[in-house]
Formats: sequence, structure tokens, C-alpha cells
Amino acid sequence: MKNFESLGLRVESGRLYILDQELLPREEVWLESRTPDDMIHFIRALKVRGAPLIGVAAALALARFVESGATPSEVLEAGRKLKAARPTAVNLMAAVERVLRGVSAPDGDLSGERVIERAEDICAEDVALCAAMGRNGASQFADRDSVLTHCNTGGLATVGIGTALGVIRAAFESGKRLHVYVDETRPLLQGGRLTTWELRKLGIPFTLICDNMAAMLMKQGKIAKAIVGSDRIARNGDFANKIGTYGVAVAAAHHGVPFYIAAPYTTIDWECPTGEQIPIEERNPREVRADFGDFAVYNPAFDVTPAALVTGGYVLDRGFYKSWTHEIRG
Amino acid sequence: MKNFESLGLRVESGRLYILDQELLPREEVWLESRTPDDMIHFIRALKVRGAPLIGVAAALALARFVESGATPSEVLEAGRKLKAARPTAVNLMAAVERVLRGVSAPDGDLSGERVIERAEDICAEDVALCAAMGRNGASQFADRDSVLTHCNTGGLATVGIGTALGVIRAAFESGKRLHVYVDETRPLLQGGRLTTWELRKLGIPFTLICDNMAAMLMKQGKIAKAIVGSDRIARNGDFANKIGTYGVAVAAAHHGVPFYIAAPYTTIDWECPTGEQIPIEERNPREVRADFGDFAVYNPAFDVTPAALVTGGYVLDRGFYKSWTHEIRG
Repeated sequence: MKNFESLGLRVESGRLYILDQELLPREEVWLESRTPDDMIHFIRALKVRGAPLIGVAAALALARFVESGATPSEVLEAGRKLKAARPTAVNLMAAVERVLRGVSAPDGDLSGERVIERAEDICAEDVALCAAMGRNGASQFADRDSVLTHCNTGGLATVGIGTALGVIRAAFESGKRLHVYVDETRPLLQGGRLTTWELRKLGIPFTLICDNMAAMLMKQGKIAKAIVGSDRIARNGDFANKIGTYGVAVAAAHHGVPFYIAAPYTTIDWECPTGEQIPIEERNPREVRADFGDFAVYNPAFDVTPAALVTGGYVLDRGFYKSWTHEIRG
Repeated sequence: MKNFESLGLRVESGRLYILDQELLPREEVWLESRTPDDMIHFIRALKVRGAPLIGVAAALALARFVESGATPSEVLEAGRKLKAARPTAVNLMAAVERVLRGVSAPDGDLSGERVIERAEDICAEDVALCAAMGRNGASQFADRDSVLTHCNTGGLATVGIGTALGVIRAAFESGKRLHVYVDETRPLLQGGRLTTWELRKLGIPFTLICDNMAAMLMKQGKIAKAIVGSDRIARNGDFANKIGTYGVAVAAAHHGVPFYIAAPYTTIDWECPTGEQIPIEERNPREVRADFGDFAVYNPAFDVTPAALVTGGYVLDRGFYKSWTHEIRG
């Protein structure tokens, strides 16, 4: 594999590393992924996270596995397990299927070079998709807009500049003086820990808030627009994203704040008819209840927002769409 | 002062103690309030919290001060400082003014017995007000209702059974099989730490959620009603309550979930025309950003919900009101 480095992922002398996002911003520790099982563990523990990034990371983990001499059946089995590491982000399944297309087992085909080449393609493509979303979305923002975002959707969630945060960055770098309101994003605080870390590096002004403050800010007129990423977009434009996104969309609709979503085509699941069919991962109750006792917790990692609440529009790599349309399929 | 004990406050042999709510549920530590300054510290640090409870605690702190031989001017000065300890909950100001009515300085009147008697009246009255709210509100819930609540409004927020949580308790104890969804209530987790602690003691079934999950639960049809407390109700029925309440009200309106508020008359500020005039306390950024870095945070402790979003009704000690009306003033 060729050397490559992004904010949260690195290939160096044939070795694959991820920046441990569970430890950020307190510590910046790179972990080596030696085997697909390592990567499955990193993905499950959210050490690697973000729908596009886990797709790229899984693809590279398979390429690394091929380079280490795995057999076709070992590679297929690793792919099957990687796809099951987390259920909601469709980028993961799509990337693994793309890398392993044509590989057959037990004694079948494994063109190792093709697997590696495809993984590298996915990686390079993600950078380009992010750049395209940035171009397509930046014009939606006006000078001095205050923009609310939820979770982390930047360079830590992709290998490019990001999805929603990439659009914000592109608008900022085009000269628009934006101010970002960052939802901390309970329970794992990807906003409070990761988005703030990225925005400080980028020099983009921001204010951190608790998720439950966003509605009040909208009422005060402090939010011009809201933009989020996605883990899976269904055929009808409904989409799953980090838990809390739906509440932001409802509040935005109530206050007439345009609500945008930014996602690459790899996030669209044309096989999934509506948001109702998107599988929603439930995570460990301890993420929410800490050491407060042993009691019932509901901890869905994602929620689904209906297309009707995407009042701003869809920022995709292939263009900006004011509303969901069959033209997007192209 | 007579001996008295509630879930979070105790008078014993003339000494005044509070249960340190900052440490709950990990530790149950009672702290003595020897002077009004002690109580001011406890109130500011949220070791004592809940609009009705801080009113009672301030009144008893003044009574204790009188018993220890303070002069009229010392008592008046202590009252002035106590009223300024936190700005939003009007119960605090009302209780201090009620206890000190007629006290004049420097060499004026201080009928110590009357101050102590009034503080004890406020304490006993709060128990009765909670009981009345419980009676007036319990009938609003149906058997098997799932009820969402925000922050802590139970025996830890009052010296009685509570406001919103008191109503839930009264309905439960009247035989209705309720299930409570508890918003954890960032940033200080009064729901996750305190409401769960109370509900476990009471044996009322509950599920803890992050604040940002409530809208999704409503969409899933899992919330029959929402009920919250208040820190100040303005003359037009707008009210301030713990940050996040407004977002719950907006989501409830979007989903047609009846939204209730429960509060005693001591929370109503007839001098305050609308929610716009309620002072909103902003607290330390560290409550939100922890050790993630030194950057801007917006941390209002309360938000204001307009009367129009109280779609369920007002559960007051003097009765249940489907909507805000001048009859409430009586």
C-alpha cells in the first residue's frame, strides 16, 4: 500500500494506523491495525468513527490483510465480520463489498493487487467527494452566518475535509466569517471532544453548547442554518444520523431555520426504501449512566430524520439539491 | 427551630443540614450550614438545588442565623446576599422577603421568634403545596402512560414529594402503572443522578435517556405525556425551567404530546410580565467543556418556554388549569 495520511488515518511503510478518537482531545495516540480483528475492535469502540472513515478504514484493513498473505476464504470471512462491526452506516458495507467484488473462496480468485488498488481508490475518492461537497455547499452560507452542527463530520469522520464540517470549512475558507455552534453530542461527546478539536486547528470561531440548548439559541435568533452529516440515506431521502439529529431538525423546522445535510454518494442506500428500514444500533447503557447505578437506559446511537425536515437541502458530491429528487440517482 | 427532615434537608437540635446533591448518587453526605454564607455557597454550588428547596433552605438559614444571635442589620444583609445567590428561581427571593418582612435595621425591629416561625411555616407549607399538586395532577395520567420528565423535581427539589415528579409519584401511588423516561439533563445531570436515585427509592419503573433522544421517542409513540417543573412563571404563563425544557416543549408540540408544568404558587412572579423579563443565569463553562480545552461555551442554566407550548396544562397547588388564565391569580 502507498503511504497516506489524513487527520485520523495513516498508511506508512505498508502499516496501517488510526488515531484513537476515544482518547481525543486529551491524548493523541496512534494505534496500529495489524489485522481485520484489530480494526473491528477499533470500529466497535469508536476509536475509528464517522460513516465515510469507517468505510475507508475497513477497506484498508482488508488490503493490509491481503498484503500479509491471507487466503481468499480468510479475506472473505474478515470482510463479513467487518461489515457487521456496526450496523447503521452503510458506507462500511458498501466499501467492503466494493473491495471484495469478485473474490471467491475457498480455492477461488483473489487478485491481491486489485483488492489493494480498490481500497486505495476508495481512500482517494473520499478525499475528492469531500472536496466536491465543500464546493457544492459553501455557497449556501452567507457572510456572518451562525451555523449549528451536531456530532463530528470533519477530517476525523472522513479522510478528506469532511461532510457537514467540510462544507463549513469550505465556506469559511472562501472568506465567509462563520461562527459555529457545536452540539456536544451526548453520550460520547463527539462534538465537545472532536469537532472543537478540529475547529481550533482550523481557526474557525465556535461556541460549544449542550445538545439541549440548541432550541433556545434558535428562538433567540442566534442560528442562521443547521447542517449535519449522515450515516445512511434511504431511497426516499429520509436519513439516519447521530442521535439528536432529529431533535435538531424538529427545532429547526419550528423556528424556520434551514436544515441541511451533507453526504457523499457512498452514504446513500438505494436498496433501503425509507428511514423506517434503516437498522439503528443500540449501544452499551454505561455510555449514558456512567457509575450512577444499575438501571434501564435506552441508548440508540442514531435517529432517523424524515426528508420533509431537510428544509435547507442536500449537499451531495454530485451537486446541491434543494429537496430529495429522483435526479439524484442519475 | 423544631426538628424536621426531608429527603434533602434536616433540622436537628437547632442545627441545619443539607444533603450534598453535588455528590449524589455516588455518596450521601450531609453538610451543616452554620451561617448564611455556608448556605449561599451550597446554593451556588448546587449542593442544594430545586426552586422550592432553595427558598426553604434560605429561610431556614436565616432562622438559624437569628437563633445564633445575629443583629437586625446582619440578618438583613444575609437576606440580601441569599436572594442574590442565584437569579432565576423566584422562590428564593420570595421566601427571604417573607421571612424578613418587618425586620428593620440598624437598631430596628427583629422579632426573632417571628422570623423562625415564618421559616418553619414556609417549610411546612411546601410539603402541603407538593401534596396539593400531586392531588391536582394525578388524574391527568392514565394507566400505563409513559411520561417524560426533565431535570429533578422530586423530594430533592422540595421538602415535600416534589412538583412534576411529585405528580408522577401521586399518580403512581394511586395505582396507575406509569413508566418514566428520565432526561439526563446536561450539563449537571440532575436527571441522570438525582431523578433516577429518587425513582429507584420509590420503586417507580423508569428508563434513563440522553436529552437528545426525547424527540425520537416521541416520534416512536413512546411518550404519552411530558411534565416538568419551573423556576419562575411570569404573569402571562411563560415560564423558566432547567435548560432543555424548551426543546422538550417544542418536540412535544411537533408530535402532539401533551406538555404539562407543575409548580406551587411560590414559583409565580406576578411582577414579571412575560418570559422575556425572567433573568437567566449563565454558569461556568467548565460544567460543559470539562477538560477538553479552553474555548468558548454558552452555558445558560435555564430556558424559557412560552405559555402556548403548555399544551397539557398547569398543575398548581390551587388546582389544575388547562391553560393559563387570570383566574389563577384568584
